[in-house]
Amino acid sequence: MRVDGTRRRTIWLEGDGRTVGIIDQTSLPFGFRTARLTRLDEAEEAIRAMRVRGAPLIGVTAAYGMALAMAESASDWSVDLAYGRLLAARPTAVNLRWALDRMREVLDITPPGERMARAYAEAASMAEEDVATCEAIGRHGLRLVKDMQALHPDRPLNILTHCNAGWLATVDWGTATAPIYQAHQQGIPVHVWVDETRPRNQGAFLTAWELGQEGVPHTVIPDNTGGHLMQRGMVDLCIVGTDRVTAEGDVANKIGTYLKALAAKDTGVPFWVALPGSTIDWTLEDGVRDIPIEQRGGEEVSDLTGQTRDGRVETVRVVSPGSPVANYAFDVTPARLVSGFITERGLCEATRDGLSGLFPDQDDRTRPRNAANDA
Amino acid sequence: MRVDGTRRRTIWLEGDGRTVGIIDQTSLPFGFRTARLTRLDEAEEAIRAMRVRGAPLIGVTAAYGMALAMAESASDWSVDLAYGRLLAARPTAVNLRWALDRMREVLDITPPGERMARAYAEAASMAEEDVATCEAIGRHGLRLVKDMQALHPDRPLNILTHCNAGWLATVDWGTATAPIYQAHQQGIPVHVWVDETRPRNQGAFLTAWELGQEGVPHTVIPDNTGGHLMQRGMVDLCIVGTDRVTAEGDVANKIGTYLKALAAKDTGVPFWVALPGSTIDWTLEDGVRDIPIEQRGGEEVSDLTGQTRDGRVETVRVVSPGSPVANYAFDVTPARLVSGFITERGLCEATRDGLSGLFPDQDDRTRPRNAANDA
Repeated sequence: MRVDGTRRRTIWLEGDGRTVGIIDQTSLPFGFRTARLTRLDEAEEAIRAMRVRGAPLIGVTAAYGMALAMAESASDWSVDLAYGRLLAARPTAVNLRWALDRMREVLDITPPGERMARAYAEAASMAEEDVATCEAIGRHGLRLVKDMQALHPDRPLNILTHCNAGWLATVDWGTATAPIYQAHQQGIPVHVWVDETRPRNQGAFLTAWELGQEGVPHTVIPDNTGGHLMQRGMVDLCIVGTDRVTAEGDVANKIGTYLKALAAKDTGVPFWVALPGSTIDWTLEDGVRDIPIEQRGGEEVSDLTGQTRDGRVETVRVVSPGSPVANYAFDVTPARLVSGFITERGLCEATRDGLSGLFPDQDDRTRPRNAANDA
Repeated sequence: MRVDGTRRRTIWLEGDGRTVGIIDQTSLPFGFRTARLTRLDEAEEAIRAMRVRGAPLIGVTAAYGMALAMAESASDWSVDLAYGRLLAARPTAVNLRWALDRMREVLDITPPGERMARAYAEAASMAEEDVATCEAIGRHGLRLVKDMQALHPDRPLNILTHCNAGWLATVDWGTATAPIYQAHQQGIPVHVWVDETRPRNQGAFLTAWELGQEGVPHTVIPDNTGGHLMQRGMVDLCIVGTDRVTAEGDVANKIGTYLKALAAKDTGVPFWVALPGSTIDWTLEDGVRDIPIEQRGGEEVSDLTGQTRDGRVETVRVVSPGSPVANYAFDVTPARLVSGFITERGLCEATRDGLSGLFPDQDDRTRPRNAANDA
């Protein structure tokens, strides 16, 4: 999408064909900076320090991290080392493991002398596939947006989103934002309520920034506000992303998503979750029971970085001195609160049947319904 | 309650018998400062700038504001002027009107020559009544806390609260915090989850500060977190305050309260609202339909004041530059989500019958149930 009018992606291979460029997202929204990853440890650090974040982008960065490792050493030992170090950089994102498993499968059957070239090619494929996936999510989600807009032809459609499931979380387009960008590009009037998304303010910092760069009308609100807006008919549709979806359709996403889903259910507002199929964790069923929730450092809650009126970037404590804090990174929204999923293969219900219907190749469980169909 | 080990109230008559001392709450939590109100316009400014906040404390401050006005001029015109200016200082708080009506009733039947003394006496009575009211709310709420603690004798009781309904919002004790302080003083182990309460961070700034000063164990969490904690069994009880309760039991309180009430309902956590009877607005029934929601300046959302590591207090922008913001101050929690009310006259259901049962002297509506009872 656009930055200062120029088309960009979040990650790219540099002209030298070896080092990897990224948008350093820690500099946003008060500055725009890119960074160059030249070694495995820099890719690992970029993931750990959240210079890149969002499940799909983490996956592609990890793939390029494997490629950078192969450029350093293409031994079996190097494959194992890179896999282990990149996997440990963020414990919750299922995409990270998915991307690394895919890279290792390819590298395991490739002779060391060809591994470097093969790794770069595979990482590039994954980046292109991610762009195609997000574009397809956008295309399917656009149907939803058009259907809802038809109900209110006289005014912009109000869409609420939480955290950043925008193009900054992917290679391009984003997941939750893809339908919004496509609607906007087609001239369908949309307005986005952007949840601030404490503690890291990814909504206020990243989603607001990218919507602004693209010219999409939006308003930033405190995380407390969405319920009130839904109650007063000021939200037509919620679309959020996800870090992990269980086979039964439970959704792990940024902390606070569950609260918005409850409000949507209570007020009759459709609540949709946009995801690539790779985000589905078929090994899990009950999300509240089974999904481990990452706890992050308390300083993300107690300290907030912003810009002073005279342009300095300062970090200030925003909690009473001496008071302890807790920082749970995600919560789980039970499938019963989700209107449906927007995937690269189409829309579906938030049920195992819904997910299996679109991704039968991924769900290898023998289900009674199939047996009944066969009979 | 205690500040640096010394017992204090939020508002008091100074030794000169005429000027009024307040804790200037805008300086908290990074500094502790008191202020002296000497004229009507200073009382009005203190309310408008939220140097004093919280429905009960606003009411008492307005009462003293009327007294300060009478010290300047005790004419009928001065009574009207002071009433109008103080009423306009905060549009949502029903306590403000209640306190001002009470003062005007008294002053209207008092000859100008006696108005000043009468106004100071009435304001002092209101302050003492507020302390007694909060103490009684604490006493009744303590029963709840004890009942719940008996279910978990082996660990502290986890109580979640939103915003600041603590002693800083009243003259002493607080409303939602009164049962907590009384439990703590009686040696019942409690731990409080303190919602940060964006945009003004009254939880992270004020509730955390006063709990810390009193030595009550607590943890500050982003507003997004409470649903997750309830889902995982980490909250035993929610207690919040309110700015206005309708005759049917709908609750207007700080934006975000509705979301926590939804989560409590969804997870089976009791959700109680603590209030003085004066907070009930018997003229309203359907809160979502009838309660006007104050919109405040966007800078409260976009800018946040905190303390740098080297001790400077700085205001930083925490929203992407150029992005619009919205700032709705309150939301309405429908009565169906409220387990009950904790009042100075006891506990009751969140229904008109519940409220009327405790405050029959306030509800002058002739209800069918009464007719049936009479028959």
